[in-house]
Amino acid sequence: MIDIGIVGGTGYTGTELLRLLAQHPTAKVRVLTSRQEAGKRADSLFPALRGFCDAVFEVPDPARLAQCQAVFFATPHGTAMQMAPALLAQGVKVIDLSADFRLQDPAVYTQWYAHPHTALDALKEAAYGIPELHRDKIAAARLTAGPGCYPTAVQLALAPLLEAGVIETRGIIADCKSGVSGAGREAKIGSLFCEVAESFKAYGVPGHRHLPEIQQGLAWAAQAPVGITFVPHLVPMNRGIHATVYARLKQPGIDLHKLFAERYADEPFVDVLAKGEHPETRGVRGGNVCRLSPHLAPDGETVVVLSVIDNLVKGAAGQAVQCFNLMFGQPETAALQSPGFAP
Amino acid sequence: MIDIGIVGGTGYTGTELLRLLAQHPTAKVRVLTSRQEAGKRADSLFPALRGFCDAVFEVPDPARLAQCQAVFFATPHGTAMQMAPALLAQGVKVIDLSADFRLQDPAVYTQWYAHPHTALDALKEAAYGIPELHRDKIAAARLTAGPGCYPTAVQLALAPLLEAGVIETRGIIADCKSGVSGAGREAKIGSLFCEVAESFKAYGVPGHRHLPEIQQGLAWAAQAPVGITFVPHLVPMNRGIHATVYARLKQPGIDLHKLFAERYADEPFVDVLAKGEHPETRGVRGGNVCRLSPHLAPDGETVVVLSVIDNLVKGAAGQAVQCFNLMFGQPETAALQSPGFAP
Amino acid sequence: MIDIGIVGGTGYTGTELLRLLAQHPTAKVRVLTSRQEAGKRADSLFPALRGFCDAVFEVPDPARLAQCQAVFFATPHGTAMQMAPALLAQGVKVIDLSADFRLQDPAVYTQWYAHPHTALDALKEAAYGIPELHRDKIAAARLTAGPGCYPTAVQLALAPLLEAGVIETRGIIADCKSGVSGAGREAKIGSLFCEVAESFKAYGVPGHRHLPEIQQGLAWAAQAPVGITFVPHLVPMNRGIHATVYARLKQPGIDLHKLFAERYADEPFVDVLAKGEHPETRGVRGGNVCRLSPHLAPDGETVVVLSVIDNLVKGAAGQAVQCFNLMFGQPETAALQSPGFAP
Amino acid sequence: MIDIGIVGGTGYTGTELLRLLAQHPTAKVRVLTSRQEAGKRADSLFPALRGFCDAVFEVPDPARLAQCQAVFFATPHGTAMQMAPALLAQGVKVIDLSADFRLQDPAVYTQWYAHPHTALDALKEAAYGIPELHRDKIAAARLTAGPGCYPTAVQLALAPLLEAGVIETRGIIADCKSGVSGAGREAKIGSLFCEVAESFKAYGVPGHRHLPEIQQGLAWAAQAPVGITFVPHLVPMNRGIHATVYARLKQPGIDLHKLFAERYADEPFVDVLAKGEHPETRGVRGGNVCRLSPHLAPDGETVVVLSVIDNLVKGAAGQAVQCFNLMFGQPETAALQSPGFAP
Repeated sequence: MIDIGIVGGTGYTGTELLRLLAQHPTAKVRVLTSRQEAGKRADSLFPALRGFCDAVFEVPDPARLAQCQAVFFATPHGTAMQMAPALLAQGVKVIDLSADFRLQDPAVYTQWYAHPHTALDALKEAAYGIPELHRDKIAAARLTAGPGCYPTAVQLALAPLLEAGVIETRGIIADCKSGVSGAGREAKIGSLFCEVAESFKAYGVPGHRHLPEIQQGLAWAAQAPVGITFVPHLVPMNRGIHATVYARLKQPGIDLHKLFAERYADEPFVDVLAKGEHPETRGVRGGNVCRLSPHLAPDGETVVVLSVIDNLVKGAAGQAVQCFNLMFGQPETAALQSPGFAP
Repeated sequence: MIDIGIVGGTGYTGTELLRLLAQHPTAKVRVLTSRQEAGKRADSLFPALRGFCDAVFEVPDPARLAQCQAVFFATPHGTAMQMAPALLAQGVKVIDLSADFRLQDPAVYTQWYAHPHTALDALKEAAYGIPELHRDKIAAARLTAGPGCYPTAVQLALAPLLEAGVIETRGIIADCKSGVSGAGREAKIGSLFCEVAESFKAYGVPGHRHLPEIQQGLAWAAQAPVGITFVPHLVPMNRGIHATVYARLKQPGIDLHKLFAERYADEPFVDVLAKGEHPETRGVRGGNVCRLSPHLAPDGETVVVLSVIDNLVKGAAGQAVQCFNLMFGQPETAALQSPGFAP
Repeated sequence: MIDIGIVGGTGYTGTELLRLLAQHPTAKVRVLTSRQEAGKRADSLFPALRGFCDAVFEVPDPARLAQCQAVFFATPHGTAMQMAPALLAQGVKVIDLSADFRLQDPAVYTQWYAHPHTALDALKEAAYGIPELHRDKIAAARLTAGPGCYPTAVQLALAPLLEAGVIETRGIIADCKSGVSGAGREAKIGSLFCEVAESFKAYGVPGHRHLPEIQQGLAWAAQAPVGITFVPHLVPMNRGIHATVYARLKQPGIDLHKLFAERYADEPFVDVLAKGEHPETRGVRGGNVCRLSPHLAPDGETVVVLSVIDNLVKGAAGQAVQCFNLMFGQPETAALQSPGFAP
Repeated sequence: MIDIGIVGGTGYTGTELLRLLAQHPTAKVRVLTSRQEAGKRADSLFPALRGFCDAVFEVPDPARLAQCQAVFFATPHGTAMQMAPALLAQGVKVIDLSADFRLQDPAVYTQWYAHPHTALDALKEAAYGIPELHRDKIAAARLTAGPGCYPTAVQLALAPLLEAGVIETRGIIADCKSGVSGAGREAKIGSLFCEVAESFKAYGVPGHRHLPEIQQGLAWAAQAPVGITFVPHLVPMNRGIHATVYARLKQPGIDLHKLFAERYADEPFVDVLAKGEHPETRGVRGGNVCRLSPHLAPDGETVVVLSVIDNLVKGAAGQAVQCFNLMFGQPETAALQSPGFAP
């Protein structure tokens, strides 16, 4: 069994990691840290885990973590960059679910996260953890940056079009909608039930931290800068991201469905719907899958790609486990093969 | 008191009409029809009306309706076009909340609604019922077509930009999200709680009946054809529409906030937020208001307009009462002056 | 116009007071306090009020409040008992929506609220603010204690039975369910959308602060001690309380419907349904009404009373305005006559 | 592999059976019937199954079903009683999730389901499918009746108390709350999102079909008739049942927690919480578990048992699979060992 440590397991991403890893055939969580909940069983915070998880929160102890073979960070930004270098130096592989290693340019990091990056060497070697786009690099990495939830949905929606060079690379629109778990398990007024239920709103139109990450990833796919407007919205539901992505075709006549089906033909976790269908977020709830449906709008020149994921699974913990599997030579689908969950 | 008839009052639009008209100082519902519920009190179907509405459903009887001064149609499409001409001939004014008189070109109507238009004379004289865009015509009309909910939110978002000629008229995107009451009070699987709750999806990407109506209205505002892609989405909430509209500025340097604030300065039912703010649908719940917020995206060339309405009020029954007030020389705000309702 | 002050207007009860008072024909909010939000407009926190409320939060100033004729407290417990005596001494009438003046025995108060009562004279004169049970006392009072939301629903459900002496006074069960706004607008994990949505739970089974208040009120109605078990539950919705109350008939043959209908025949805000019907919380949403339906269970000896209110209206702000109207000789229904709101 | 047939797989119970059986190590769905959806893939109706279920709906054909070793009925009442006898005669074991074989007295069946029972021999041999109460009988059965969802939650809550004889057997109250999936996947107005969301109500107070089933099961546990009042309520959520059960202790001093913990000590699917805790329905979402918490009310004589299940799993499909496992000598937990799912 591969010994796993999780730093910061009290949020929704952390509990989802525990849920998935509880079913992993060759890995086991040995260390689970939380300064605040130290001494409590994980299943006392998350009763859905009762019977499936014995882990007890403990104060983070570098020595204990260094005994693991892999450490996941499910912490706010700023923590992983402090602790990862020492772990790497001791031979521990790291999968960071925070933002610390997503942006390769430290200046861009500082601009959006308002503090300097303090682990520049680690940053240089970090793989960007979308296996469908960077599988080989992840498999060879000691450190993987788990992508943001919105960036995952948007990049998988646009990669086939940008790689094939069939759309204009300016004026792309990513209108994205997320369930509330994307805001984390923090006590703040804006995430209260009564502030969110029976309402819908956009936020962050003037700028959102996932924008530079999306731009970076699309530029890799297009091998050129890409101009995109990204607007996130909050949906009154627990889980799910729906990205509706608009781009202009360079020329008519592309078989969009074929392009997507072929691009993702061998991917176990990308599912291209039949022509004309519309995915629902509940169809991927609990599953590690991105479901895509490309459409040509009635104007004959606008491509509309519908892309749905569960933000906590393919958008966070599931994709992190997928990367872990690659980094440790395990079957990529280990612990990730159970059906979604609806209603 | 002005005597009012309502044809088809058993849906969500009909009950909202009853709620609003119950508070109208100079109008009273005298005839309320429903073939299926004839004999029942309206408040037995809609207990929220208990104590505020004595109306009893009756089988539709043209003679009874002709005794009213105004008749609202809250019916599926196809009914108003059959009954309106005779009512108009007898001096009754008509406000139709269905789609029958929205599209001025009967061929376009037939293309989207799959049956011929049978009231061509009435269609010619129908005013299009967004007072902020067509007030004089509505005030002079005998017949007003209540606009669709999506078209209301989108047209109010784009009119200032198109009238001022500051955006490109091709490649506009209207990414729209609606609560479930927009689908009506019909027993269908797709509107069941368990099919909708905890999920989010797009629908109608290949084509939706509100597209030609939006195109028609935008062309009026731009005085030229407008190219727009419209994608509706379903939000797990009862009420509310959020339109996120994207367009490209012809040239930089426009003061978007000033443009919107001035355009709607005298409008009691359009509310432009302060710069940088984001409206929420719950902020307009129950109120007859369209709340707008124009933004310039980080790319400096994409305008993003956020537009929210309550689909049953400003998107249907409230706007219909607003038109009624204009058609009968009443204060435009009569029955429409109560605050929204949150949480 | 009667000048009104509101202390602590940033919660859901406070904003509901603002919504209702915005429509009051003879009263106006002159002073609105919040230490934390001082300087902000109320409608910047609660956009649903935009256009209907000019009030600006200010730091609480006893001199400013003393210029009002009535002061409402929408504060956590402990504040009103500190400020009310001085206001009363200056001729200001007080309606307290917190728990400070609900329990007439200060020892019981201390037992449940963990601090001594410091305004014993005021406590002695306080009227208990359910007008249907204590109208004359409220009309004559300088100080009224707004009851808890659960106690309102339960007392109105049981009063007819206890006053008539037709049920056993031991072994009564009040199984109560509340929307999340009952937990207030505080940033706490347990009220987050993702902790509440798609779930249902009981809480406070070992003891809840509303139990002694319910016991006190039922004892007044029965003129004897009453034994009751009270279990509150949390429902994933914004508003509404549903109390399901069970009691045993002393002897068969009571016409329950008649008993309730006659008891509340002249009450504008208690609505007894027809025999065999079941109320829904959405039917009273936004309205100041308690809707009741008494049933005899199939066993022929258990009475089941269904009682619904909007916890923020008849359970808090609406009932407070009703008391205010009585205390100032205004029509009892002023500002409270608008239909509920569904869907 | 054990070959399985499912009759009527288009409802929420049917799709849940497909989800669970997709993970069964020793069973496989070979025949899946639906007259209406014949020819369609199951995963086209339930996209969450994409990638995990190849089953295609077919018209029910007795010969095809007879080739299976086990047939599950997920049909409305009335169907299983017609088809089961022939299947049993051909050596097929049957697990019926409908009401047809739940009530052992055919006269009671007719009273509540309004048609005669036509499979009296089968009815006589049917085991009642709560393994924790009737394990041996189920293991030996050819035909098992899957219990109703409410009866499962209530019987597991009361069995320890009734078996031990520590509560009065008259005047028991079962106040039960269910998510909307309990109403099935039928197109009816009352189950629409807009009729259910943001509301809460009781229903069936004058009488509900699960009452006689509960009475029958409790009488078995008590070995005497039991008097109980059962009131179901509808919660605006997809899944979950919360039963709050009240009974009177015969004498004080019982250690309730110990009684429950010992009764269910060896049960893999009943989970007794620590003293003083309250279960949430989301904690058992997707899992085949009944989570229980017994409390003594402040009056010292009323027992309050909190009991939660996922109505589609332990309340239907999961418990049916548990019975299937027993009937076929498989490990009782096969296909039922995955953690619940929250948020």
